[in-house]
Amino acid sequence: MKKLKMGMIGGGKNAFIGAVHRIAANMDGLIELHCGAFSSNPELSLESGKELGLADDKCYGSYTQMIETEAKLPKNERMDFVSIVTPNHAHFAPAMLALENGFHVILDKPMTLTLAEAKILEQKVKETGLYLCLTHTYSGYPMVKQARNMIAENDFGNIRKIMVEYPQGWLSTNFESGGNKQAAWRTDPSKSGISGCMGDIGTHAAHLSEYISGLKITQLCADINTVVAKRRLDDDGNVLLKFDNGANGILVASQIAAGEENSLKIKVYGEKGGLEWHQMEPNTLVVKWIDSPTQLYRTGNGYLSPIAAFNTRIPSGHPEGYLEAFGNLYKNFALTLQSKLEGKEPTANMLDFPTAKDGVRGMAFIENVIASGKSTQKWTEFKI
Amino acid sequence: MKKLKMGMIGGGKNAFIGAVHRIAANMDGLIELHCGAFSSNPELSLESGKELGLADDKCYGSYTQMIETEAKLPKNERMDFVSIVTPNHAHFAPAMLALENGFHVILDKPMTLTLAEAKILEQKVKETGLYLCLTHTYSGYPMVKQARNMIAENDFGNIRKIMVEYPQGWLSTNFESGGNKQAAWRTDPSKSGISGCMGDIGTHAAHLSEYISGLKITQLCADINTVVAKRRLDDDGNVLLKFDNGANGILVASQIAAGEENSLKIKVYGEKGGLEWHQMEPNTLVVKWIDSPTQLYRTGNGYLSPIAAFNTRIPSGHPEGYLEAFGNLYKNFALTLQSKLEGKEPTANMLDFPTAKDGVRGMAFIENVIASGKSTQKWTEFKI
Amino acid sequence: MKKLKMGMIGGGKNAFIGAVHRIAANMDGLIELHCGAFSSNPELSLESGKELGLADDKCYGSYTQMIETEAKLPKNERMDFVSIVTPNHAHFAPAMLALENGFHVILDKPMTLTLAEAKILEQKVKETGLYLCLTHTYSGYPMVKQARNMIAENDFGNIRKIMVEYPQGWLSTNFESGGNKQAAWRTDPSKSGISGCMGDIGTHAAHLSEYISGLKITQLCADINTVVAKRRLDDDGNVLLKFDNGANGILVASQIAAGEENSLKIKVYGEKGGLEWHQMEPNTLVVKWIDSPTQLYRTGNGYLSPIAAFNTRIPSGHPEGYLEAFGNLYKNFALTLQSKLEGKEPTANMLDFPTAKDGVRGMAFIENVIASGKSTQKWTEFKI
Amino acid sequence: MKKLKMGMIGGGKNAFIGAVHRIAANMDGLIELHCGAFSSNPELSLESGKELGLADDKCYGSYTQMIETEAKLPKNERMDFVSIVTPNHAHFAPAMLALENGFHVILDKPMTLTLAEAKILEQKVKETGLYLCLTHTYSGYPMVKQARNMIAENDFGNIRKIMVEYPQGWLSTNFESGGNKQAAWRTDPSKSGISGCMGDIGTHAAHLSEYISGLKITQLCADINTVVAKRRLDDDGNVLLKFDNGANGILVASQIAAGEENSLKIKVYGEKGGLEWHQMEPNTLVVKWIDSPTQLYRTGNGYLSPIAAFNTRIPSGHPEGYLEAFGNLYKNFALTLQSKLEGKEPTANMLDFPTAKDGVRGMAFIENVIASGKSTQKWTEFKI
Repeated sequence: MKKLKMGMIGGGKNAFIGAVHRIAANMDGLIELHCGAFSSNPELSLESGKELGLADDKCYGSYTQMIETEAKLPKNERMDFVSIVTPNHAHFAPAMLALENGFHVILDKPMTLTLAEAKILEQKVKETGLYLCLTHTYSGYPMVKQARNMIAENDFGNIRKIMVEYPQGWLSTNFESGGNKQAAWRTDPSKSGISGCMGDIGTHAAHLSEYISGLKITQLCADINTVVAKRRLDDDGNVLLKFDNGANGILVASQIAAGEENSLKIKVYGEKGGLEWHQMEPNTLVVKWIDSPTQLYRTGNGYLSPIAAFNTRIPSGHPEGYLEAFGNLYKNFALTLQSKLEGKEPTANMLDFPTAKDGVRGMAFIENVIASGKSTQKWTEFKI
Repeated sequence: MKKLKMGMIGGGKNAFIGAVHRIAANMDGLIELHCGAFSSNPELSLESGKELGLADDKCYGSYTQMIETEAKLPKNERMDFVSIVTPNHAHFAPAMLALENGFHVILDKPMTLTLAEAKILEQKVKETGLYLCLTHTYSGYPMVKQARNMIAENDFGNIRKIMVEYPQGWLSTNFESGGNKQAAWRTDPSKSGISGCMGDIGTHAAHLSEYISGLKITQLCADINTVVAKRRLDDDGNVLLKFDNGANGILVASQIAAGEENSLKIKVYGEKGGLEWHQMEPNTLVVKWIDSPTQLYRTGNGYLSPIAAFNTRIPSGHPEGYLEAFGNLYKNFALTLQSKLEGKEPTANMLDFPTAKDGVRGMAFIENVIASGKSTQKWTEFKI
Repeated sequence: MKKLKMGMIGGGKNAFIGAVHRIAANMDGLIELHCGAFSSNPELSLESGKELGLADDKCYGSYTQMIETEAKLPKNERMDFVSIVTPNHAHFAPAMLALENGFHVILDKPMTLTLAEAKILEQKVKETGLYLCLTHTYSGYPMVKQARNMIAENDFGNIRKIMVEYPQGWLSTNFESGGNKQAAWRTDPSKSGISGCMGDIGTHAAHLSEYISGLKITQLCADINTVVAKRRLDDDGNVLLKFDNGANGILVASQIAAGEENSLKIKVYGEKGGLEWHQMEPNTLVVKWIDSPTQLYRTGNGYLSPIAAFNTRIPSGHPEGYLEAFGNLYKNFALTLQSKLEGKEPTANMLDFPTAKDGVRGMAFIENVIASGKSTQKWTEFKI
Repeated sequence: MKKLKMGMIGGGKNAFIGAVHRIAANMDGLIELHCGAFSSNPELSLESGKELGLADDKCYGSYTQMIETEAKLPKNERMDFVSIVTPNHAHFAPAMLALENGFHVILDKPMTLTLAEAKILEQKVKETGLYLCLTHTYSGYPMVKQARNMIAENDFGNIRKIMVEYPQGWLSTNFESGGNKQAAWRTDPSKSGISGCMGDIGTHAAHLSEYISGLKITQLCADINTVVAKRRLDDDGNVLLKFDNGANGILVASQIAAGEENSLKIKVYGEKGGLEWHQMEPNTLVVKWIDSPTQLYRTGNGYLSPIAAFNTRIPSGHPEGYLEAFGNLYKNFALTLQSKLEGKEPTANMLDFPTAKDGVRGMAFIENVIASGKSTQKWTEFKI
């Protein structure tokens, strides 16, 4: 099996998420870093690429140069896909250009700066028939897939209630004014879009609620807050939700929950029981029943669904974490591309990664939730 | 020290909460069951009282008979206070009569059937100078008192966010139609009032959020649901909150969270850190900080505040539970009455039990939250 | 139902365990404190008794005076049983005298100062036909009874391995030299016996392992340590165990496990699965299976065995703790005596409290484990 | 930075640990799979290598062929080190041959089949000046390094007690007779050596106890059991320990702890406090103190020691797991080799991986613990 060739856009030295993408891509030996435009500063891009072991001519000075140059290479010498790990405002243009030049795309979330861009990008994906994977990491955890599977198989009956919360504490102070790069762009409307917290982590929570439950948000009522003085975007919010089967829900996302790390949790309740999953202890899925003892489903055990097993690398009791969940997105994306290259249809398990469609819903979530936050009306329809 | 004499109203055979009140009252040897009107059915009252070791003439056929008879006895032979453990609709009248006849009152929550009744009752308490203790049990836990104390001492800076949730699963089915007595009255508007879930457990969550934080709810936005078919009152709700210092919050109460037992949890976040408490593991208070490791404060340790120690009976590592928390309400109430009998002023620690004022706020919470649930407007003012 | 009359020996002001016994006795309204010899100092006894609401003539100056005086009273005026809550060296004589005068006995553990005394006491119990309850508190927890029941019903197949550990940290320093009364007598051979830690908490661990498993220890190999300088008795030990069905085990008891509270834990493994229970979170029994998800059995649920339900007071999710477990010993003892008074045979559930037989095994454990600690031979037979 | 070239010995299709080694090696982009002798069956080796993307001529038919062929290649074309992932009996010969031909070695544990082999191998490492990394994975976890660091800095005072347990349940039945490859060789003396459970997981527990505490085992007293019928090696054991500073300890390793996954836990107690770490929740280190609240140290936070940070890839709250811990061994080994290649001295952090010296101690542990298991004497000296 030949390794797929990845071209990276963004992710130069000191960029947090770029390094994560590379570990995720490396992990299973299916992908190799082929080239990169790691920075809009050509010198920095070269320096970053060399540190990563690339030849000088594979360290491009810009993503346009990279895409155009690679597109001219013979098929077996050029990159197979691009991985875009830039801030939000620099997602749309490189993704469009990559697709137009025949390259598949892995793209960090949220998909674009605006819903309008997202729709155009989704349309381009459809036209080209290429694959786009949006890195909603949390959907890559095996126990999340187990949860989705149990609900899909109706183990709990009709779903009635979803509680999802995503508290972080790292923006409890005016961190962005102190020179922190991660904080700076995330709180800058020109780079982050119309939302800070809801765009950065609220979209993860919304995606997770829909992915696990198989339901769609139809209405929301949001209390959106900017708690820290002088901050330019929201850093906190609480949202009432309605889903398309009539279930109700609640979504909390906050970056001023002082003392919290990355404490994404979800609880889903149906007629017969419910389930609970915590990202910080991701290998346990708590399954609750009306009349019998609570069960702890654990990664790597024989009693799990095939799709959970498909996204697991090691035996039970050997904890897998965030990087493995991220790696699952890359692995499934790579297996999908490999299948195509070998002229085979990818399986449903391989295709189980977030797509442009999820990206459009994510951007719609941002626009709707911010609109609701400004509204004096209780319920806002979830419009796309 | 002479034991205080308790007269119980309600709490006959098979009544859940009456038995809990008696254990709480017995626990510390400060109170003795003196008489009771355990049922509106005189025969059942007699039978119940005899089982509890009372003489026949101390088993009254009605609360009016009990209060009027006892009031005529010499001071050292009559009951010192009544404990009212009936369903909501039978709180107001016996409490008023007891106060009018000079008896202190312990009263189950919510205080009355309506806010109007609650205000009258509060007024009567003020007029008589007697004590009324409302059994918001959860405020009796030592770690809840520790939490309140740390916030009051400004350990976390200004409070910014409160998340309180109270999911139960026992009403996931139409339990009330199957003859369950607890479920039947709680879902019957004539006995429970205008709310089911919000009155029964939402008021506990609201009280806890205010008790721990020292803040007051000023606005709310509620999604109130009746999930189970044919149920006559709400069994679920999600509420956005605003507090008087500008903090935001979220309150979830549900009795259709299938598989949950009695999972009251609260998280409070300030500028410098936060805290988390779970009723089902009540002896641990999780204290989180921005820049240093999370701490586990535990019942019974020397580093706790004096008020936590005052509400603890045994050394650390020997778990205290719900009955001890309930017992703390009775103990503090009893110590208050004892102090008065001995002509001394009760200490602040003794007086730390919920009062008629809390009861009025609880009834206002119910009326406001149900009104908000019916409103199309986002925010409803918390009116009393 | 008439309340049983309790006479207490020991447990004066500031005594920890005496207060615990009184709460446990009070809790269910089945027992009333009738008299006491709370201290060997008559003045202190009087003062203590008055604080507890006793008349002066019910505060005896010595246990001999109390037993002899009460024995002369008419049957319905005298105490029904004594509760002995003195240090170990003052268990045997009052227990013997009580039995000889026709009084049932509740006795703190370990039963006596020596194995020889224990055997005499057991013999006296047999001769008199009276009841003796030894307060191995931890066997009173409902989830411990559930565990015992599941093993007895062979849910896990043949038991193969038992791991019990009981680390405390309160004697990490030379606490006894600083005037702490609890520490002082426990580390004094004349009051505690030949062992400190193994007698105080090792016996609890040993009893729990036998109670839950239904097995008996047959051999042991002990490493017994006195870690803190100048301490006169052991404060730590690790013991290899063999049980009568061939199962192996390990028992750790330590009072120098710095930072631990009262962290008794037990794990039992059989052919098909295992179980785990932690005293500090006593309402959960973790049940593990080879091929299916781990289950959390929780106090108060309908799926539990009848004996667990018999020892539970409130619904699931309302935590019961140490005092309720202690209360269960008193409750079962009281129900047993009541049955006898009413001329009925006590049920198996009522009789489920530790007896003199357990006390003899406990004293044999102490003598054998200390002997083993001194032996250069690996295995020491468990001799009685 | 050039990637290091790895030659793998063992780890063909369906081998569990070979795949783990490859993920660990891939993760950080520092190492590339260069060649392999994946099986003693040349066809299987070829097939396995091709699946992994190797050219046919890099799939060797035997390790001798691989080592000899690669040794003849120009320095920049040949492999830099071998990774040996075969069963125990096939560790010594390839490791010796690799060292003799100038290749560094990564070797799965336990190091060899016998202590005698281990000593020879250690001597060879010394003679050649090459590096050997033994994969005691658990020492690669950042919170284990934090624990070691806190003890080394004397945060807890003198260490008094160590409790380490490693229960697994996967060999609760006679799994090896059913064709399971992992179970078959681990229970076969000719492939596993004189011990099953103690060699496979007991050595991990022993290494962890010494690594974290900085102490050395000096005496042990073992109860070694073969619980499952017809099994040829031990599957369970309990061991009393003495350490070189006088601390006592207990080590439990079992593969018949039905229902357990891979539940390695360690507790260490000093004069002032203690710590506790669970492999299955590896990102939390519980730190306990005599007089102040227990603290939860968590991976990725700024308050951790530099060596913990050095072994962490992502921010706090993003769980890292077993593969990252394994990856840390590979990463540190690779950084050490890179430093050497660049003519620099590796830092202490880079050199922090288990070596041949640890391997010799591990083999000594196996021989001593099995000898003790057969002895009637209580204590056996830890001889090397």
